[in-house]
Amino acid sequence: MATKHDKPKVGEEPARQDAPPAVLALDLKPGALSPENRAYFDKCQEKLGFVPNVLLSYAHDDAKLTAFAAFYNDLMLAPSGLSKLEREMIAVAVSSVNRCYYCLSAHGAAVRQLSGDPVLGELMAMNYRAANLSARHRAMLDFSVKLTETPHLIGDDDREGLRKAGFGERDIWDIGAVASFYNMSNRMASAVDMRPNAEYHGQAR
Amino acid sequence: MATKHDKPKVGEEPARQDAPPAVLALDLKPGALSPENRAYFDKCQEKLGFVPNVLLSYAHDDAKLTAFAAFYNDLMLAPSGLSKLEREMIAVAVSSVNRCYYCLSAHGAAVRQLSGDPVLGELMAMNYRAANLSARHRAMLDFSVKLTETPHLIGDDDREGLRKAGFGERDIWDIGAVASFYNMSNRMASAVDMRPNAEYHGQAR
Amino acid sequence: MATKHDKPKVGEEPARQDAPPAVLALDLKPGALSPENRAYFDKCQEKLGFVPNVLLSYAHDDAKLTAFAAFYNDLMLAPSGLSKLEREMIAVAVSSVNRCYYCLSAHGAAVRQLSGDPVLGELMAMNYRAANLSARHRAMLDFSVKLTETPHLIGDDDREGLRKAGFGERDIWDIGAVASFYNMSNRMASAVDMRPNAEYHGQAR
Amino acid sequence: MATKHDKPKVGEEPARQDAPPAVLALDLKPGALSPENRAYFDKCQEKLGFVPNVLLSYAHDDAKLTAFAAFYNDLMLAPSGLSKLEREMIAVAVSSVNRCYYCLSAHGAAVRQLSGDPVLGELMAMNYRAANLSARHRAMLDFSVKLTETPHLIGDDDREGLRKAGFGERDIWDIGAVASFYNMSNRMASAVDMRPNAEYHGQAR
Amino acid sequence: MATKHDKPKVGEEPARQDAPPAVLALDLKPGALSPENRAYFDKCQEKLGFVPNVLLSYAHDDAKLTAFAAFYNDLMLAPSGLSKLEREMIAVAVSSVNRCYYCLSAHGAAVRQLSGDPVLGELMAMNYRAANLSARHRAMLDFSVKLTETPHLIGDDDREGLRKAGFGERDIWDIGAVASFYNMSNRMASAVDMRPNAEYHGQAR
Amino acid sequence: MATKHDKPKVGEEPARQDAPPAVLALDLKPGALSPENRAYFDKCQEKLGFVPNVLLSYAHDDAKLTAFAAFYNDLMLAPSGLSKLEREMIAVAVSSVNRCYYCLSAHGAAVRQLSGDPVLGELMAMNYRAANLSARHRAMLDFSVKLTETPHLIGDDDREGLRKAGFGERDIWDIGAVASFYNMSNRMASAVDMRPNAEYHGQAR
Repeated sequence: MATKHDKPKVGEEPARQDAPPAVLALDLKPGALSPENRAYFDKCQEKLGFVPNVLLSYAHDDAKLTAFAAFYNDLMLAPSGLSKLEREMIAVAVSSVNRCYYCLSAHGAAVRQLSGDPVLGELMAMNYRAANLSARHRAMLDFSVKLTETPHLIGDDDREGLRKAGFGERDIWDIGAVASFYNMSNRMASAVDMRPNAEYHGQAR
Repeated sequence: MATKHDKPKVGEEPARQDAPPAVLALDLKPGALSPENRAYFDKCQEKLGFVPNVLLSYAHDDAKLTAFAAFYNDLMLAPSGLSKLEREMIAVAVSSVNRCYYCLSAHGAAVRQLSGDPVLGELMAMNYRAANLSARHRAMLDFSVKLTETPHLIGDDDREGLRKAGFGERDIWDIGAVASFYNMSNRMASAVDMRPNAEYHGQAR
Repeated sequence: MATKHDKPKVGEEPARQDAPPAVLALDLKPGALSPENRAYFDKCQEKLGFVPNVLLSYAHDDAKLTAFAAFYNDLMLAPSGLSKLEREMIAVAVSSVNRCYYCLSAHGAAVRQLSGDPVLGELMAMNYRAANLSARHRAMLDFSVKLTETPHLIGDDDREGLRKAGFGERDIWDIGAVASFYNMSNRMASAVDMRPNAEYHGQAR
Repeated sequence: MATKHDKPKVGEEPARQDAPPAVLALDLKPGALSPENRAYFDKCQEKLGFVPNVLLSYAHDDAKLTAFAAFYNDLMLAPSGLSKLEREMIAVAVSSVNRCYYCLSAHGAAVRQLSGDPVLGELMAMNYRAANLSARHRAMLDFSVKLTETPHLIGDDDREGLRKAGFGERDIWDIGAVASFYNMSNRMASAVDMRPNAEYHGQAR
Repeated sequence: MATKHDKPKVGEEPARQDAPPAVLALDLKPGALSPENRAYFDKCQEKLGFVPNVLLSYAHDDAKLTAFAAFYNDLMLAPSGLSKLEREMIAVAVSSVNRCYYCLSAHGAAVRQLSGDPVLGELMAMNYRAANLSARHRAMLDFSVKLTETPHLIGDDDREGLRKAGFGERDIWDIGAVASFYNMSNRMASAVDMRPNAEYHGQAR
Repeated sequence: MATKHDKPKVGEEPARQDAPPAVLALDLKPGALSPENRAYFDKCQEKLGFVPNVLLSYAHDDAKLTAFAAFYNDLMLAPSGLSKLEREMIAVAVSSVNRCYYCLSAHGAAVRQLSGDPVLGELMAMNYRAANLSARHRAMLDFSVKLTETPHLIGDDDREGLRKAGFGERDIWDIGAVASFYNMSNRMASAVDMRPNAEYHGQAR
């Protein structure tokens, strides 16, 4: 599971498949999983066909895995004025600023799937400003990217801009929370060189 | 509790104190707290003399408060190869890059308290490179700040540098995790203009 | 052909297909094509199934189209110590720095096709440093990206680095020429909001 | 002609003049020139008194020289809503951002000559914002410099700003094309350390 | 006095106090002071309880000390439309951009003392945008920080903004002069690693 | 003298010459000069043929003029391990980073005059890295430019680099002092839009 990887070189033979693929650049032994986390992994396997490598990466420490998964699931799946697609659009636009290979792969796939629009996923990953977005979505992503690039410059005008685009107080919290989360997650992935599951690349093209 | 604040102007009369001070720039009503979170707030009040405003900010949604507090407490308080002071040093050095008023105030106070060295807190907040740090601490903070500023440039050499400074695989995870977390927390504080509790400023000077 | 476009909004009905799709944000009438350029477009249609929109964009002025196509074809197709795939890898890595939607779409597809490795195309577009590249390719792309970001800092050491990675004098010229060209092409595409042909997105996934 | 140069050190004896001066930092042998390119060089010699080193630099490959010269001459000399001086002003303002010694020397001289205003050449090279420009010229250069520094941020508002300053659709193409070209040319010059002809420095002072 | 310092390591025994503490990272012998400068130092000692280390740093050359002190005292103490507190606010906001440990320590203390508001000093050092400033002070600091970060972009609009905020012609000069001075002083302190007097850290908390 | 200027537009009639030319963008009346400053201006007129506009700019306040001139003259003219040419080279390289029109004009002329090498002045203003400098001069300018761009990153290694290039402790002070000064002077010139005397542009070409 979470063991130090040797990435196959371009043009080389792929590594033999009898060992589980490595998912990060640290030599961390997988820890014992709680029954709840074991069930969570089983559910991932059943529904997605694989366990996302970000979860395998945290599996060296069951308590950290639990805390991360709870935080993540509330953020991305709990009821919100933002649709799940909108939350994924923020995830990808932020990950594009931070050039995070893991998150662009995984959440780019999510945008393609949730929107049914493969090109929308590409646009979020490449340059969201090239997309023909609604005023709501443009304001949402402009705020998220400014918060990513220059958080110290965010001020009342920026929040007011979101209100004018139709977002409520709680929506502003949620936009801030999702954009902030991917600034953490992008960096965690970079810190340990987390590798995306191969399945993401071809999904929903 | 968590209601939209009117900051007192410099030189003006302070706001009347019969209303609880506002802690963020969104008009969010405090939600009902679970017994566990109520007990958590009571414990804060008892041990610190106040409930940190970051917790009051999340209190508009009990589930989010629970998820945040669990994630935070594992990160900063669970056993680790990094001391609590070292985790706080990372918090402040990262918050300095992002110029986060809330986190510099709260975690600057923590560095002063845990180290018993008021000047160390100032150095972390102003420019950690001006401090006369051990090679271990310099490597730890250089990695954290590079991860903050240019996460896409982090590579094997950077992780190897931490190993050479004596950090183990799990320590590298923890450095990455703490630095990444404050990149989230700094931005969340900026997104909603979270205000630090007044108590922090004078602590441990 | 090259007329001002109205991009379909996300979630809206697509524009009616009885008018040819617009390819750039300027209202420029297609000019008369020379027989040679007409034959060139016919060959594109026959071999690719479409005429690349960059060529349609230049078609408002036959002389400019001729000059651009000649320059481009020499650069990307003439004999060189760099393979065609290597030239496309540079194209995408440079376009990633400049966040050029057109070039990432078109040349990302080319990397996928020429390499037979869909993930390599993603890596070049997202963050080439996350790919497990040979020393030759890493040096080639590091030079190209430094030339893109800080051309005024390129010096003898950078050229010497390419020589140590096995590149000859003419190869260095060609790396510089390809990286420089996409710094032009990315900006031209951004200046006029050039839209990639829809066909690129699904190719060679 | 185009051979690797040893730059004379400051305060040293100049290199002996019986060998033609080197023009770039690559050891590339001059190739055989086509009759057309030979005639082109002769015309340069006759009209300018020298062959610009950028042309000598490309002379290691006759096909590349042909393609470059055709592209360049269409761009800078063909009929356009932009005067030749305006195109040279863009060239210098872009080269100033990229700090390109070759292009600042050669095109700074061109601005001085075409305008008859030596100070205008200095202003374009140093900081065009310090010049007292017409609204047309300020808009033209602001667009060119934004396209140079942050091409991914160019949007409809920027093009609309040019229209409001009086530029037509084709003019916008031409502004984009000239600014984009010098982003290529600046980088090509830096990639190979192209040296400007000595004649430029004193021209039209 | 001004001799090369060995900073005490975190957690180490402090250096013995029978030698005067070093104030900069250059091995410069203190020079002979003129009677005027000797009297000036005596007055500092009497009024402040110490001689500021910036003065000790210049004391290796009496003429430089004289010129610096005269320039500084005119700037910060001479009659001006800006109060002394306002000048210190600019000093700290500029020093925050440049992350100057010496100036943030010394002038942060000055803001705390002159304003009687310890939090105001923190806000200037951490992020002045988080303070609830009057329009006058916000304009004054926005100008100062823009002048610090991108002096080449300052134009008539910026000066006009100061006029609209109520500043006169001479006030604009003074804002520019103070902001510019700390861009010098921050860099001089960084160039020689000037260390702030220990007294500053606890003042007026 | 120091009155608000109306810059002549490009291509317009020059302003009538019966009024003294304006030198800055603030409406500041020239103040009464002390006999010493009057003599200083007379000496400038006699030796240079004009009074530098930077001095006329300060002339609205005799005390500020005195303090500035004393500081400047000590810095640039007092005995030092750095030659006057070296100090001017630093001035121009720093002013190039800050894109200061006034200082590039005035000190570019000084480099041309003191070196007798017109091209050296151009190189300092355009990109000092393109010059074939001695190791001493390259180290001196690299330090000055790093101090200009990222003063917070200057550390012991940078000072040690200067020592290895042959500079003594006092020389390091002087390099830092000159580079720091022009970071002030560039910003003061930008703050008030100081205009260089016309005489500079043609000097020593």
